[in-house]
Amino acid sequence: MKIEFPDGTVKEFAPGITGHEIALSLSEHLARVAVAMTINNKLSDISAPILEDSAVKFITTHDPEGLELLRHSTAHIMASAVCRLFPEAKLGIGPVIEDGFYYDFDNLKITRDDLETIENEMRNIIKEKIPFERKVVTKEEALALSGEEPYKMELIRELPEEEEISYYMTGDYKDLCRGPHIPHTGHVKAFKLLRIAGAYWRGDSNNSMLTRIYGTCFPDKKALNEYLELRKIAEENDHVKLGKELDLFITDKTIGQGLPLLTPRGAAIKNVLIQFVEEEERKRGYVYTITPFIGKSELYKISGHWDHYKEHMFIVSEESSDEELALRPMTCPFQFTLYNRKLHSYKELPIRYAETSTLFRNESSGSMHGLIRIRQFTLAEGHIICRPDQLEEEFDNALDLIGFIMKTLDMTEYTYRFSKWDPKNKAKYIDNPEAWEKSEATLKKILDKSGIPYVEAEGESAFYGPKLDIQMKNIWGKEDTIITVQIDFALPGRFNMTYQDKDGTEKTPFIIHRSSIGCYERTMAILIEHFRGKFPFWIAPEQMRIVTVSDQFYDFAFALRDKCRNAGIRAEVDVRDETLNKKIRDAQVQYIPVIATIGKKEVDAQTVSVRTLDGTVKYGMNLDEFIRICQGFNKDRNLTITF
Amino acid sequence: MKIEFPDGTVKEFAPGITGHEIALSLSEHLARVAVAMTINNKLSDISAPILEDSAVKFITTHDPEGLELLRHSTAHIMASAVCRLFPEAKLGIGPVIEDGFYYDFDNLKITRDDLETIENEMRNIIKEKIPFERKVVTKEEALALSGEEPYKMELIRELPEEEEISYYMTGDYKDLCRGPHIPHTGHVKAFKLLRIAGAYWRGDSNNSMLTRIYGTCFPDKKALNEYLELRKIAEENDHVKLGKELDLFITDKTIGQGLPLLTPRGAAIKNVLIQFVEEEERKRGYVYTITPFIGKSELYKISGHWDHYKEHMFIVSEESSDEELALRPMTCPFQFTLYNRKLHSYKELPIRYAETSTLFRNESSGSMHGLIRIRQFTLAEGHIICRPDQLEEEFDNALDLIGFIMKTLDMTEYTYRFSKWDPKNKAKYIDNPEAWEKSEATLKKILDKSGIPYVEAEGESAFYGPKLDIQMKNIWGKEDTIITVQIDFALPGRFNMTYQDKDGTEKTPFIIHRSSIGCYERTMAILIEHFRGKFPFWIAPEQMRIVTVSDQFYDFAFALRDKCRNAGIRAEVDVRDETLNKKIRDAQVQYIPVIATIGKKEVDAQTVSVRTLDGTVKYGMNLDEFIRICQGFNKDRNLTITF
Repeated sequence: MKIEFPDGTVKEFAPGITGHEIALSLSEHLARVAVAMTINNKLSDISAPILEDSAVKFITTHDPEGLELLRHSTAHIMASAVCRLFPEAKLGIGPVIEDGFYYDFDNLKITRDDLETIENEMRNIIKEKIPFERKVVTKEEALALSGEEPYKMELIRELPEEEEISYYMTGDYKDLCRGPHIPHTGHVKAFKLLRIAGAYWRGDSNNSMLTRIYGTCFPDKKALNEYLELRKIAEENDHVKLGKELDLFITDKTIGQGLPLLTPRGAAIKNVLIQFVEEEERKRGYVYTITPFIGKSELYKISGHWDHYKEHMFIVSEESSDEELALRPMTCPFQFTLYNRKLHSYKELPIRYAETSTLFRNESSGSMHGLIRIRQFTLAEGHIICRPDQLEEEFDNALDLIGFIMKTLDMTEYTYRFSKWDPKNKAKYIDNPEAWEKSEATLKKILDKSGIPYVEAEGESAFYGPKLDIQMKNIWGKEDTIITVQIDFALPGRFNMTYQDKDGTEKTPFIIHRSSIGCYERTMAILIEHFRGKFPFWIAPEQMRIVTVSDQFYDFAFALRDKCRNAGIRAEVDVRDETLNKKIRDAQVQYIPVIATIGKKEVDAQTVSVRTLDGTVKYGMNLDEFIRICQGFNKDRNLTITF
Repeated sequence: MKIEFPDGTVKEFAPGITGHEIALSLSEHLARVAVAMTINNKLSDISAPILEDSAVKFITTHDPEGLELLRHSTAHIMASAVCRLFPEAKLGIGPVIEDGFYYDFDNLKITRDDLETIENEMRNIIKEKIPFERKVVTKEEALALSGEEPYKMELIRELPEEEEISYYMTGDYKDLCRGPHIPHTGHVKAFKLLRIAGAYWRGDSNNSMLTRIYGTCFPDKKALNEYLELRKIAEENDHVKLGKELDLFITDKTIGQGLPLLTPRGAAIKNVLIQFVEEEERKRGYVYTITPFIGKSELYKISGHWDHYKEHMFIVSEESSDEELALRPMTCPFQFTLYNRKLHSYKELPIRYAETSTLFRNESSGSMHGLIRIRQFTLAEGHIICRPDQLEEEFDNALDLIGFIMKTLDMTEYTYRFSKWDPKNKAKYIDNPEAWEKSEATLKKILDKSGIPYVEAEGESAFYGPKLDIQMKNIWGKEDTIITVQIDFALPGRFNMTYQDKDGTEKTPFIIHRSSIGCYERTMAILIEHFRGKFPFWIAPEQMRIVTVSDQFYDFAFALRDKCRNAGIRAEVDVRDETLNKKIRDAQVQYIPVIATIGKKEVDAQTVSVRTLDGTVKYGMNLDEFIRICQGFNKDRNLTITF
């Protein structure tokens, strides 16, 4: 039997030899580090016998496939440790994820403190170098093996008859698993359990809530420590942590998941972003509408949301309403209804409807996070209704607006993704392959002409059309879609939207669905992580802090504060019983962009002394001039803060 | 038998004589006009026999009781006509209402055009002078009489055993009815059927939808015509009609009842009002929060809404959510949760939280109207959390703010109502009689001290405390509550809200729930009816219309428009193929406050000619000065529009 290796060499072996034996024949080191192999590009246990001529490649934990396998095996080791320590726990599933693994358990009541105990037991199992043994079984045998594991039994029952069922045995621990796995537990050198979370069995909220333990594992301690270090930095700069420290938002269990409450400071940021976007969009010819946040199912049936998006929608209960109402997940059908209130001439187009729009989406419990993924959010939403000859220019205008907004926000590290439908998964989309091809070709043409660099992604479009996504990585390295621009071939027809063309005939317009700043909450999260509290003047929730040498100057301070507030500047007076220096230091630590100090000299001369974050101080400024300059920082958002 | 009359005279009659016979004995005219009588102050058919000494008063259709009775009888006549014309129709109920009557029918498919046919048949019945005959029956007899009327049977079955059941016969028409009625149909001189509406049987949306016909009736043609004239004026100035004509808002059956959509023009008005209120409230020390529009039932159980307000709330269905969520009817529990995020010192109080808050209330189908009573609305909501020693001043501040806002909006015809709980209906309120008495006494003291004139109303308080209501009459003469200020003794304790007092102890603060402009949609409705489209400059959705002598000046016009828009002025260019004069006339008819005309002279000199609604024209204005003056009208809302 001939075996070919990656370097092209070919060797003869007797049929039936295992991968491990071949590795051993080549080098003792290789046999020690190889945790798996590929036979004709198919990943396999290294203990598997090879029966005929094949190409074989050995895999170590430094290969991407090897690392994944190592993590998968570590998930088994964790589950094995949990079963030893908590025999009443029932197994769910335990897959590998982006940067580690998890395993779900029912009937396991533990706290964060238990993770160390589990880690210690895992270390015992690793020391024992227990082999992972694969066992192919029939469905009946599998059911017998899983006798006390109801979730495994459910999975086995659903397996197709023709599928090969395998079990992996690691000492006393047995797990339904396709594999492959590392040869024995001793190959795990560096792992860490990270956190506990709740997760519904199969992600379905009608099922039991299981306990999920997250962990990770690396080929060596150095790589693990580097990862943990990065993770710590990310955690410290996560907007949830900063949001609490900067008093920007809270979440509350009694109110519900994914429903953050913005404090006055957080609300100030959101409101200033809304004001910025609305002002800019109005300048660019958008007109604002205000449409309701609930609507009848009838409306969503026309739009297609009822068929393609219902699982993400909150429906009002029958008992509490005489109509079948749902909270809206998008504004499109509402703005389309407004468009249809009258006839439109070709001359009126493009019509650019914008709305600072509240939307509701039923995100799953596990996916919610801070301000990034929530159940109620505010989208800078808009629909451009235009003629075919205006499509390209309007698309470019939308891109230009996004570019301007991102630049003003100091957000430059984004990429473009051209999201297409998935013809193999037609149920997810409006079924009109011809229109999909046509509109994807149109979008591609526009993108190529615009010269922006983009990647293509199948299966990421909206259900009604292809889109361009603006993608950003968050502090955890996870890519999120921040803003989308979509071409819609389906909804204008479904809503019977028309315009009267030059020749008097009624035609169907094109629609561009687009955002400009995206979802305000998500953008806030990115800004919080980006600026780490050191917001530019125009965004800062507290733009000015007024500190006095003593409380005898409070009247002057409050008068200045009110004058500033009337001029649209967010000013506060520090009334704590602290020294001037302590007050200044605290304001600096909190990155207040402008610190106004007031003592006898200032009150006598009716002036103010001004400190900025670059450390400069300007004494004895005229009050009106001081306020005028601050107003300028609010108006021209790119000005350097200097007096 | 002695009968005493209202003028004090007493006459002898034989027992058993009817009212009609007595009237006839007094005067033929009286017998002709008297439609009923009171026997010892109890209203009765005039055909009823009198059996013992009594005080008798005759009633004509010019007496309030007589008019009501006339309308009730006309409802029977209408039902009789409907039964003649549409024998398959089934009777619901037909009561008298404020300015007329209605009758509900099942199985009656008619349009507005059928009302004339019904009126004609009613005229026939009136001509026939058919007597109303009262018949007292047993429950069994009543059920037999109602054999083909399922709704009447339902009512009869529910009658208490001891109750006297009466039927009124009007020729072939028979109706379960307490009466009394006019002697015969010929007494109806002036009636009109007004409109058709849908109404659920017994107002319950789980029941059938019936057809309701509204009508009215007056003692004579003159009074009827006066009423119809007033009604026409009200209808023409109703904000729903004006809202459509001025293109401010629409409602749409597919979206749902009580869910208006604001067009760009309507949204402009709402946004400008929000901006005005937020700016003013910020100046007065309010800080804005942004809290979610849905929350868990757990939260509303703490607040008491679940027990006292649930019927008005929209609940999210169990199938579509893993938590029991409801759309919020008020913001209080959300702002209280925010307050509780940290400890507060007595020094921080008062804290004035404001929110431009979206609320949802499940108004019944019949009660919804335009922008006045809707299912989703925006309240200028606020909660002042203060110490006991600050309560009076904060209440006065709230009143002062309301006065300022009403004055700026040119709304002066409002009254104050002191709304108290109803101790006889304890289920509606938080059960703490002592606290009710104390807080009502406190509020009364504050009101008396403030010197505002007010009326008291029992049973009109919030479920958690007494309130002061600002009341206005709408164009139909109906009084609505526009704004409320409430003192809350219950919720701070329920939410465990505290502050640390000077002496270090934790104390419970007082809360004032208050609005400033009320519900934005309702206030818009009032403004629409008040100004009838002739909005002041700062409110006008289109503040400036630019008209050109010909299309060769469009570039200049669009440049001016964009410059104005950048300066925050809502400007449009009239691009229709019309003459300058026609364009100016149309703008004047639409009450556009500023009309800018552009011809060759203006373009050459880079100026603009300006027309205002008072008819004055100013030629050749410098562009920058023109824009600066317009900006001034936006800033100082009380300026006269003059250049």
